[in-house]
Amino acid sequence: MKTDTLQPFDFEELFDELWPICRSITGNGLRQSLEILKRVVPIDVREYETGLRCFDWEVPLEWNIKEAWIKTNDGRVLVNFADNNLHVLNYSLPKKGIVSKEELFKHLHSRADLPDAIPYRTCYYAPEWGFCVEHARLTEFKDDKYEVFIDSTLKPGAMTIGEMRLQGESNDEIVFTTYLCHPSMANNELSGPLVQTELFKRLQQRLQRRYSYRFVYAPETIGDIVFLSRNSDELKENMVGGAVLTMLGNDSPMMFEPSGKQDSIFDRAARNVLEHRYPGSSIGSRNPKGRAAQRQYCSPGLKLPLSVLSRALGGSYPEYHTSLDTKSVIHVDRHRQAVGILEDIIDVIEHNEKFINQRPFGEPFMSKYDLSTRIGGERIKPQNLYYKYLLQMSDGDSDLLDIATELNICMLDLLTAAQDLVAAGLLSPAQTTCKTL
Amino acid sequence: MKTDTLQPFDFEELFDELWPICRSITGNGLRQSLEILKRVVPIDVREYETGLRCFDWEVPLEWNIKEAWIKTNDGRVLVNFADNNLHVLNYSLPKKGIVSKEELFKHLHSRADLPDAIPYRTCYYAPEWGFCVEHARLTEFKDDKYEVFIDSTLKPGAMTIGEMRLQGESNDEIVFTTYLCHPSMANNELSGPLVQTELFKRLQQRLQRRYSYRFVYAPETIGDIVFLSRNSDELKENMVGGAVLTMLGNDSPMMFEPSGKQDSIFDRAARNVLEHRYPGSSIGSRNPKGRAAQRQYCSPGLKLPLSVLSRALGGSYPEYHTSLDTKSVIHVDRHRQAVGILEDIIDVIEHNEKFINQRPFGEPFMSKYDLSTRIGGERIKPQNLYYKYLLQMSDGDSDLLDIATELNICMLDLLTAAQDLVAAGLLSPAQTTCKTL
Amino acid sequence: MKTDTLQPFDFEELFDELWPICRSITGNGLRQSLEILKRVVPIDVREYETGLRCFDWEVPLEWNIKEAWIKTNDGRVLVNFADNNLHVLNYSLPKKGIVSKEELFKHLHSRADLPDAIPYRTCYYAPEWGFCVEHARLTEFKDDKYEVFIDSTLKPGAMTIGEMRLQGESNDEIVFTTYLCHPSMANNELSGPLVQTELFKRLQQRLQRRYSYRFVYAPETIGDIVFLSRNSDELKENMVGGAVLTMLGNDSPMMFEPSGKQDSIFDRAARNVLEHRYPGSSIGSRNPKGRAAQRQYCSPGLKLPLSVLSRALGGSYPEYHTSLDTKSVIHVDRHRQAVGILEDIIDVIEHNEKFINQRPFGEPFMSKYDLSTRIGGERIKPQNLYYKYLLQMSDGDSDLLDIATELNICMLDLLTAAQDLVAAGLLSPAQTTCKTL
Repeated sequence: MKTDTLQPFDFEELFDELWPICRSITGNGLRQSLEILKRVVPIDVREYETGLRCFDWEVPLEWNIKEAWIKTNDGRVLVNFADNNLHVLNYSLPKKGIVSKEELFKHLHSRADLPDAIPYRTCYYAPEWGFCVEHARLTEFKDDKYEVFIDSTLKPGAMTIGEMRLQGESNDEIVFTTYLCHPSMANNELSGPLVQTELFKRLQQRLQRRYSYRFVYAPETIGDIVFLSRNSDELKENMVGGAVLTMLGNDSPMMFEPSGKQDSIFDRAARNVLEHRYPGSSIGSRNPKGRAAQRQYCSPGLKLPLSVLSRALGGSYPEYHTSLDTKSVIHVDRHRQAVGILEDIIDVIEHNEKFINQRPFGEPFMSKYDLSTRIGGERIKPQNLYYKYLLQMSDGDSDLLDIATELNICMLDLLTAAQDLVAAGLLSPAQTTCKTL
Repeated sequence: MKTDTLQPFDFEELFDELWPICRSITGNGLRQSLEILKRVVPIDVREYETGLRCFDWEVPLEWNIKEAWIKTNDGRVLVNFADNNLHVLNYSLPKKGIVSKEELFKHLHSRADLPDAIPYRTCYYAPEWGFCVEHARLTEFKDDKYEVFIDSTLKPGAMTIGEMRLQGESNDEIVFTTYLCHPSMANNELSGPLVQTELFKRLQQRLQRRYSYRFVYAPETIGDIVFLSRNSDELKENMVGGAVLTMLGNDSPMMFEPSGKQDSIFDRAARNVLEHRYPGSSIGSRNPKGRAAQRQYCSPGLKLPLSVLSRALGGSYPEYHTSLDTKSVIHVDRHRQAVGILEDIIDVIEHNEKFINQRPFGEPFMSKYDLSTRIGGERIKPQNLYYKYLLQMSDGDSDLLDIATELNICMLDLLTAAQDLVAAGLLSPAQTTCKTL
Repeated sequence: MKTDTLQPFDFEELFDELWPICRSITGNGLRQSLEILKRVVPIDVREYETGLRCFDWEVPLEWNIKEAWIKTNDGRVLVNFADNNLHVLNYSLPKKGIVSKEELFKHLHSRADLPDAIPYRTCYYAPEWGFCVEHARLTEFKDDKYEVFIDSTLKPGAMTIGEMRLQGESNDEIVFTTYLCHPSMANNELSGPLVQTELFKRLQQRLQRRYSYRFVYAPETIGDIVFLSRNSDELKENMVGGAVLTMLGNDSPMMFEPSGKQDSIFDRAARNVLEHRYPGSSIGSRNPKGRAAQRQYCSPGLKLPLSVLSRALGGSYPEYHTSLDTKSVIHVDRHRQAVGILEDIIDVIEHNEKFINQRPFGEPFMSKYDLSTRIGGERIKPQNLYYKYLLQMSDGDSDLLDIATELNICMLDLLTAAQDLVAAGLLSPAQTTCKTL
């Protein structure tokens, strides 16, 4: 079922193009990043104007930045935004003037525990200015006064969000969302958008889809809120599962956390696939606080079943949220594996059905249907075992995922056996809709 | 309660008489075996004609065999049915003629992993002929051509099934069934019929039975299907539990698998008895595929609560289904223990009741009923402890098995205490029927 | 919330005054003990006359004793009640005369396993006389005859029970009860009454109480039955939880056993407090037999939710029920800790509420409510984490205890965060009563 023969876009080339851009939750960096992805997939880019009310929030002023630096007394540039866009506090107010060392240090962010890293710091909703710098370099600040310059603007504008949708036979929808507000960091967050983009391409080329699929590229938290405030009625009607895709390129095994107390079809499928096809994966239970996007989707007023797929839940890798999160942290094959896992999960979802045994009294006489071995007593093949399991357990209450879960096997391994039995007339699909699975 | 004083029939003598007979799923071997057992217990032997429709199956042609051999060029008998009836593929078509070594080997079954064993192979529903032979002896086949002779018949006839029933106060029925189609093998399957036969004798001699008991001797799978197709309405009405009895004579601890998702009274009783009286027993959870008889009884259209009691679930002993499964594999004391376990389970079932505390406000004043120790502070005896448990927990919702399970003790150990309390008027049986237990 | 600044009464002084009294389930010792406690707390002392019917029991004759001894032939006092009131079988009939050694030994109780201890033995409901003595001293009985004298009376009188009640905003009631029938033993049972008395003083001084509190000092078993037979209708209406307080002064960690199958508010709070504030505590599951007071409160006809708090469930310390259970077994600081634990449990109960998120669509915009950090990316504080948890989980179904339990933290640690959110208008209490928590 997997479209392995298709040529994926080149992860690395796309990465290199997106990497240097200074993104934020609004502004031209975000806009430009979506335009680049739009060359590969048909993203619908939408602008939401500053001041627009969305639930308890409103779209903030748009932030853009051209230049920023700190100079010593003798005019030497100590810190330069041109070197690394993490050097400026993301959403910093503009600033120009001479400041004392004491004053500057109040606005200088560094991490003593990671002295060689520039930390990633933001001030989206506080009127602050500031710089971020390697802790080891604080000793270079020997003067009493410094010239600081931040050529940023904070003006009415818009927040940019990208959306795509693939219609299936049913309106029941699986939603994928990823964050695109992070400036130059690799795993968090170019890996999420790259995996999501490739996944779209794979699904687009499928001939048949029972479910519909939606893909969102949004700034973290506020972007999800803006999107949900405009789409929550439709999602409440149609969304049956999905995941936020984040930090998928680093070296750790896949980690999964489900959407909520009730298992969604995505939760059930993801657990089955990860447990049986990707041993070593970490399958968590519901995090009651949720991850950023989950806190919006799964909030008590919405309760939309959004799960998390990640290799670094909670930012569990040392380079997280610093200038050390570069290309060296991520791997193309980890991205490809993430896409493969997502395709397996979707295969399970697409093929999950409830069946009813059409010869429910005793076992069917399998020889009549050419589904039996001729010589009794020889070692029984897995396929023949699966026939027996499916016939015993297909009472219209359990779907294939339930049966696979009880048997502790991958649902995809049961699928061929189920299809054989359907072909023989021994199983029939129960009249169920996607929603009831 | 156990009828230990009764003289059981001699397991060994009966075994020796049944052993040499070439049984199959139909035919004179099966018929003759039932006649031998009928000398000990009043089996009702029934014949079901070839072609009779039963669910998705029909009764096959009757198979009988007189003689079979393979001869070398020089007339030496290499393989002879007279030596061991496993040498012929069970249900083999008749065959007579000269065949090439290559042709013969297509019809010769052996097991490389057990080179000294003749494997037990069948072809009930495929038009095959063949022989089974020790793998180690394949080197003896040095000629290019062989004379083969199988003097079998496959003709319209009947399938023979044995049944017995003991009526109790209630029609609610416990069903035991065992396989009788296996040719000369000891544990599988002379142990099942022998244990079942002895169990019948014990129950027959009981003065009181709340439940009714049914005993079936049937060829595996097809025999169960034939029996069920004729009795399923009655069983659906009355069967409350039971077990297939199979492979009970070998040296392993007792193994139990319950009937289905819902616990039957037999499942609950068997777990309690095995856990507390027979430590080391293996108590499994439901096997979703079921064992052969279970696949018929528990099929989605019938859902009859048949459990499994065995010492070798899935044939987990090396001699299984080969000529090595001889008398040396089984032990009379293992058979006797199996009967003892079954009697204990039946004791629990027969005596299980829901009681209601008749002095439910606070504890009863036990001294008044002579159920107390005179001196307070001395070590309390188990019996007095059981009084306390029973009085606290007998609210009409929990039966003795529930209470014993919560207390993690054998229900039979609670029974005397319950009887004391009933005698004192402190407990009364709730108005329940067998069915609701 | 704890009233740590209050001066508790002196545990030791009160102990010393209560210690020498020979208490029993009736009589002047019990009466006198309650009068002593009444000097500290406003106990309502009630007398229940001999012969009064209470459920299956009746109030027994009142027992009092002045003097008792065993003398040798030559007039030497071998055993004297004046030395230790455990020397007499509690509730012994009066006795005067010369008895043979053989006869005396039938009435002499000792413990071979604890040769230096006088065992505590009773004969409340049997017409016995007797003495208890150190097993090691049995060798001193060298004469053939002895003079015995027990100057006890068993006459119509009354049983004395002490009660107190603190009214709260609601009639929903937490009930504490303790045993006061034990003669000179320290942990069992002066620790229970002492802790209960101090707890009353603490709760009395609280300015606000949502719940009402009842405190009972009763002879074990029969006292509970007498009390319940007079108050069960009211308790069935109002009692929502509580505990028997017993053996709280010894050196072991706190042990807790819940009230029944359904968790009471007291059970839930006690588990949360003990698990997270008092590591090492033992949190048991329901004991189906129950402890003495529980057997009365939780009996099938009453099902009142009484739990147990103790440091020695089932008497699990070597000195239990002997003359070795002296002041050296108990510690003032263990008593104080017990009171502290009870106050913590009550704090949880008093502050437990269901809240509803007032901005349930996505997360609230926390900056607007001054509940956010200004700089994004800095390490989040527990308080801010608790905000996120509470907002996600406050849907009106879960109360703070449920949320704390799911988060595996002490509910009291969540409380400030909840109060902040209420102050900000982000959470509102659901309209629930004590009963529904």
